[in-house]
Amino acid sequence: MSSSAWLTGVEALATLAFALSGLIEAARKRLDAVGVCVVAGLAAFGGGTLRDVLLDRRPFFWVEHAHWLWALLALCVLAMLSLRARHLALTERAVQWPDALGLGLFTAGGTELALAQGLPAIVAVLMGVITAVFGGVLRDIVCNEIPRAFHDHRPYAVCSFAGAWVVVGAQVLAAPQWLGLLLGAGLATLLRALALWRDWQLPAWRVD
Amino acid sequence: MSSSAWLTGVEALATLAFALSGLIEAARKRLDAVGVCVVAGLAAFGGGTLRDVLLDRRPFFWVEHAHWLWALLALCVLAMLSLRARHLALTERAVQWPDALGLGLFTAGGTELALAQGLPAIVAVLMGVITAVFGGVLRDIVCNEIPRAFHDHRPYAVCSFAGAWVVVGAQVLAAPQWLGLLLGAGLATLLRALALWRDWQLPAWRVD
Amino acid sequence: MSSSAWLTGVEALATLAFALSGLIEAARKRLDAVGVCVVAGLAAFGGGTLRDVLLDRRPFFWVEHAHWLWALLALCVLAMLSLRARHLALTERAVQWPDALGLGLFTAGGTELALAQGLPAIVAVLMGVITAVFGGVLRDIVCNEIPRAFHDHRPYAVCSFAGAWVVVGAQVLAAPQWLGLLLGAGLATLLRALALWRDWQLPAWRVD
Repeated sequence: MSSSAWLTGVEALATLAFALSGLIEAARKRLDAVGVCVVAGLAAFGGGTLRDVLLDRRPFFWVEHAHWLWALLALCVLAMLSLRARHLALTERAVQWPDALGLGLFTAGGTELALAQGLPAIVAVLMGVITAVFGGVLRDIVCNEIPRAFHDHRPYAVCSFAGAWVVVGAQVLAAPQWLGLLLGAGLATLLRALALWRDWQLPAWRVD
Repeated sequence: MSSSAWLTGVEALATLAFALSGLIEAARKRLDAVGVCVVAGLAAFGGGTLRDVLLDRRPFFWVEHAHWLWALLALCVLAMLSLRARHLALTERAVQWPDALGLGLFTAGGTELALAQGLPAIVAVLMGVITAVFGGVLRDIVCNEIPRAFHDHRPYAVCSFAGAWVVVGAQVLAAPQWLGLLLGAGLATLLRALALWRDWQLPAWRVD
Repeated sequence: MSSSAWLTGVEALATLAFALSGLIEAARKRLDAVGVCVVAGLAAFGGGTLRDVLLDRRPFFWVEHAHWLWALLALCVLAMLSLRARHLALTERAVQWPDALGLGLFTAGGTELALAQGLPAIVAVLMGVITAVFGGVLRDIVCNEIPRAFHDHRPYAVCSFAGAWVVVGAQVLAAPQWLGLLLGAGLATLLRALALWRDWQLPAWRVD
């Protein structure tokens, strides 16, 4: 298997994890079939799409690779036929690990794209974080919840932030691009996995 | 009366229906005058504007035809002066039929625009659905509700989806453009009208 | 001190006020550190960014002046270390006056930008209002509230609306640009300050 086929496989797995997070949220909120598809789609593709709107890039990923929209539709139909309440918590736990992978991959990819446009380091980092995190943010806004990434005091965007700086740092040090992407994605994924495993908490704002 | 004048009339009627759906929601939520105008405007123009942002098209409809913004403002002032609580339910019921018309028209128009840019079929369909449905979605998000189109288990986006495929099919079969638009808009409107009349329900996800 | 240094100072003060309004809302909702930064950033830069997306302008303010992102980050860290519950109400009251200044400045700037693109008067006014008001709207949507600007019956967007028309009027009368900006910003700020001082209310829609 070539490295590019590997990468596509990992990317598909990560996107699947993001889409499933949308499916689970939609099921919890008892959305109808339309809502399920939209929320799953927002969770999977919303972050990258928002980044592309901000960077004024076209075509979007899901326009260039429109078969992913078909795959998403098939996933939603399949899930609605087979997933039951007792599967939701299980799926949510199983999805955490590929989701951490997605966090890393999308962070590194988004940061790299912004660097390639010559944007300042802090903006590139922000774009990496938006790519990885804002699909989930849009999912929660549509489901009428305060976005989990802003509220649950568990490191998520922070892991993405750290990984994005590694990608920026690699470019500053003139390291090969693949190395920066690998280290950045790796660090974000590792930090998230550690945060899940050790149950890390963000320091709370002791406002009262 | 020429066919173009007819079309403008139908379009104005449909936009009016969309704007009124925003007005009613704003009244229910007891928004102030500013909120009423914004929510009515989002309901009327939000779907097409979101589509244009995604397709990177300018100028927006309401920039090219800025007098529609004046008309919207006048409508909101008029409604706030004359509409009372006892009128709301009545207006909502009366608005259902021109709203179905708008669903068909905006679906067909949005799909056609995306096809003209050479986008894949499934993306063109998605753009048609976004044009017709996401004005209402933005209206509900601003009013802090889960969007009705994702939640109420009544066919709405699904009718738009079906109509959009007719527009795509007509292009594949090299039928004249006006025929595809007419059939697509007609099917979406007809399905929505039938859904209202026969009280169709989307299959629920029996998650428990 | 040159007039340009003055202007930068006033603009920084106004942006600070907008960011603090986001900080306070985030604290009320007990968001974590990530949420605090995002909501403060949306409140400060969201309105101008939305306007630039609609007008298809790049680079954004925070891309061209990326050090403002660092300043925002520093502000959030500082606030989380020092602000306590008993400071929130006080800060909110203190922030009202620079916020009124921001309302005026951002209205005038946004309107002027749209006029420079040759957009119709009503569209330019709308862009001015979006610049000044939609940062707060995005802040409230992410915090899962109906936007205060649409709901609290206190003149805010209306002051911005009035000021924007002054900028448009000055252009129509071929007055010097700086005069239109000054009068427009001044009127919006003055009206808002009067509204706060005299506790003006928007007329309610007596819907029942």
